[in-house]
Amino acid sequence: MNQLYSSKLLENAVNEFSKLPGIGKKTALRMALYLLKQDKESVVQFGQAMIQLRSEVMYCRECHNLSDADVCEICANQRRNHSIVCVVETVRDVMSIENTMQYQGVYHVLGGIISPMDGIGPADLTIESLERKVAGGKVSEIIFALNATMEGDTTNFYIYRKLKNFPVTVSALARGLAVGDELEYADQVTLGRSIVNRLPFESTIKKG
Amino acid sequence: MNQLYSSKLLENAVNEFSKLPGIGKKTALRMALYLLKQDKESVVQFGQAMIQLRSEVMYCRECHNLSDADVCEICANQRRNHSIVCVVETVRDVMSIENTMQYQGVYHVLGGIISPMDGIGPADLTIESLERKVAGGKVSEIIFALNATMEGDTTNFYIYRKLKNFPVTVSALARGLAVGDELEYADQVTLGRSIVNRLPFESTIKKG
Repeated sequence: MNQLYSSKLLENAVNEFSKLPGIGKKTALRMALYLLKQDKESVVQFGQAMIQLRSEVMYCRECHNLSDADVCEICANQRRNHSIVCVVETVRDVMSIENTMQYQGVYHVLGGIISPMDGIGPADLTIESLERKVAGGKVSEIIFALNATMEGDTTNFYIYRKLKNFPVTVSALARGLAVGDELEYADQVTLGRSIVNRLPFESTIKKG
Repeated sequence: MNQLYSSKLLENAVNEFSKLPGIGKKTALRMALYLLKQDKESVVQFGQAMIQLRSEVMYCRECHNLSDADVCEICANQRRNHSIVCVVETVRDVMSIENTMQYQGVYHVLGGIISPMDGIGPADLTIESLERKVAGGKVSEIIFALNATMEGDTTNFYIYRKLKNFPVTVSALARGLAVGDELEYADQVTLGRSIVNRLPFESTIKKG
């Protein structure tokens, strides 16, 4: 049903909110009425934060991660190991891995994965920039950390072939049972691979 | 777990989004990353819509509904019956009733209901303005359309007593079984009132 608003300004704000992913008209209205109850400065701050984010944020020259500067905090950090490069699809994946606090290397954000169905080819991603980085000779290991989907595997393989003439180790995220998984409910492919690629028991004992 | 962001601008936008009702950090991040994918103008439009809403929206001088002008579209509409005033708690209730397209009178938005637990007394609401409106002599009927809660009933009764010396009909929204309700699951109080306040059968046949 079409909602009737007594104010065009309200209608406008509701329409803008409802463009956000997962937000319908009802939630958008709730958000707009919430803003109306806040003091003016907070709302200006809210609006400005969004405008600033879009207009001022940059992408790191080195790794294409979101950054406030030309080079992101991770790439600018000299205590990190710049010879290990973890290849991820999006900036969100960088955050996920950073949150594990288990990784001390740097990243390379592809900006997507090869997906002919969506019209995304290698040229749409930052693969060339990765090649140049590897050709520079300072990279010793590349870690593929793309989603374990067909598109992810395709992209891994494409990059792998591009890099195979460089003296660089190529690894990929371990695949197997997730922590807490029950064998009965694990999918066949995962379970099959887990038994083929079984690990020395010592290495599976949680460290730290 | 505390999320680490590679950009302060992103962190800022995520924090702002997560102030909205019902929005957690994960959803806020999804929204912020969504904005980053939109073109600059759309995001400026988004931010401006919120700031404008808060700074430019007005409250109708007559009924305290949200409005773009001094007097809202409903109060300014001369085809509506200005002698019937429907008393509601919030602007959202105006929208709900307008959406039914069954009401041709005007409204009076109280801006809340009397709730000593939340420290809201009669003076915090627009009751005085309603009294003045009735004292003006142009109102023939007041319809109470507050929520059917204890606070709503208290507020109704308070206003009722304030207005009892004026020659005005006071009515309230009908209470009873909702359309589609099954007797077995209706609560006792509602069912009890429905049988005491039973209606002539002709009046329950849906019109239009």
